[in-house]
Amino acid sequence: MRDFSQDHRWLSINTATLRKSRGADLPLPAILDLCAQRGVRAVSPWRDQVAAAGLGNVARLVRSHGLALSGYCRGGMFPAVDAAGLEAAHDDNRRAVDEARELGATCLVLVVGALPGALGGRAAHKDIGLARTQVRDGIGRLLDYARSVQMPLAIEPLHPMYAADRACVNTMEQALDLCDELDPSRSGALGVAVDVYHVWWDPKLQAQIERAGRERLLAFHVCDWLTPTQDLLNDRGMMGDGVIDIPRIRGWVESQGFAGYSEVEIFSTGNWWQRDASEVLDTCIARHRSAV
Amino acid sequence: MRDFSQDHRWLSINTATLRKSRGADLPLPAILDLCAQRGVRAVSPWRDQVAAAGLGNVARLVRSHGLALSGYCRGGMFPAVDAAGLEAAHDDNRRAVDEARELGATCLVLVVGALPGALGGRAAHKDIGLARTQVRDGIGRLLDYARSVQMPLAIEPLHPMYAADRACVNTMEQALDLCDELDPSRSGALGVAVDVYHVWWDPKLQAQIERAGRERLLAFHVCDWLTPTQDLLNDRGMMGDGVIDIPRIRGWVESQGFAGYSEVEIFSTGNWWQRDASEVLDTCIARHRSAV
Repeated sequence: MRDFSQDHRWLSINTATLRKSRGADLPLPAILDLCAQRGVRAVSPWRDQVAAAGLGNVARLVRSHGLALSGYCRGGMFPAVDAAGLEAAHDDNRRAVDEARELGATCLVLVVGALPGALGGRAAHKDIGLARTQVRDGIGRLLDYARSVQMPLAIEPLHPMYAADRACVNTMEQALDLCDELDPSRSGALGVAVDVYHVWWDPKLQAQIERAGRERLLAFHVCDWLTPTQDLLNDRGMMGDGVIDIPRIRGWVESQGFAGYSEVEIFSTGNWWQRDASEVLDTCIARHRSAV
Repeated sequence: MRDFSQDHRWLSINTATLRKSRGADLPLPAILDLCAQRGVRAVSPWRDQVAAAGLGNVARLVRSHGLALSGYCRGGMFPAVDAAGLEAAHDDNRRAVDEARELGATCLVLVVGALPGALGGRAAHKDIGLARTQVRDGIGRLLDYARSVQMPLAIEPLHPMYAADRACVNTMEQALDLCDELDPSRSGALGVAVDVYHVWWDPKLQAQIERAGRERLLAFHVCDWLTPTQDLLNDRGMMGDGVIDIPRIRGWVESQGFAGYSEVEIFSTGNWWQRDASEVLDTCIARHRSAV
């Protein structure tokens, strides 16, 4: 297991973590500047932030700063109520693959979607099995394109509390079943993003990380689970402030040969997004060394 | 699958559902009266409500109303930081078994506990594996006593969002692995409580219900998952108001031979607990017929 205590060379910043500074939107170019100033070597930007700053502009900034992309957030949201909706999702996901490629990302992270309409509070139906079938079919179809342009797809199993509205793939086992079905040769074109926030609770986590192996472990995300958690989406904790034994999980992932970045992804309306982004980043760096 | 649309003979009311009326505490005797007036045949009371009203008093009321108990809530909370804490938990669980017996409950529901101190916001450690070992040992020890007085124990797998502070048994598969280990003969002394709120998201749910079989299916709880969910604990929905396909899950359970009560358990600070308890109960009865 790598020693993170001496430096932050393996730290990546998911740009959602610095999305807001003192409660106000912080544009992506400013986030990239800040990361570069602190010697952060990798980031993982969100599509909406890239779109707001302009893809070409962001690509230039990433290159001029010499930043790696530990991932690109995000593709997915495959389920829909009709064929036109499925097609629109596919088209959008192809664009996400193209953007990931232009930015030089190591993978496109997939938050696969769930019951259509549920995110807006009006689920079109209650058939999670149907949503799961559409997800499988959608990933399979996207995979053909992603392979052709050599962009790996990382399925991110989301915590079961998001099963209705954000992702109906909710365990590592389920994600790896999809990988086995759609990429039986373990080509590296399809794998998983392991976010400790989503999977720390799983009694089968260690076994499934071992099952994934190096070929399927495409990304590793960290933050912490707070007790109590005040909000289902935007109350993630800084590493070390919660109950997740992050080093133990990182040990499992690295024992499979994973040698990539440890990406900090914190959504925190009430706490971290209220602070100055430079304070948040300094804390990420310190906790990367002490608590990851 | 039984037809629930014509009457509510298979409805049970978990008394937490009516714990408050217009925001004020409703004592258990009043809840029992209300249920009896509406022709409800079964309830599942909570220990704190029973203690407040007096065990003997509640036992008399239950008998005079002719109420069955679809369960008794709850035993569990096994993990502790030291031997004295483990012993105290065991002693308390023995008392819960005795109370369940005096009340004539069909089973004692176990919410098994998790990281000691986490419920109060200060977890004593982050070793969920240790908590799980203590849970296994605690159930095993309690089972010896519960068998001797013929009180079945129902492990309730709780939603993974409670893994830190309420229960580190979070899937049907995990609960059934415990049952297989501690009661390999499927004697009926140990089984599971299936609450749709906790397990609806699980891609292995149908398979695990089939694995459980009649001997292990000791209780069936219903409410609904709202989108959005505003609070991790106390924002459960009335059946039909959320995204859970309850009839489908009930069909799986009944196809294994389960023929017990369908128990409504709703914690709802912002909505149902603000209404008059009689309105809540009438709604439970109506939704039992239309949405369960």
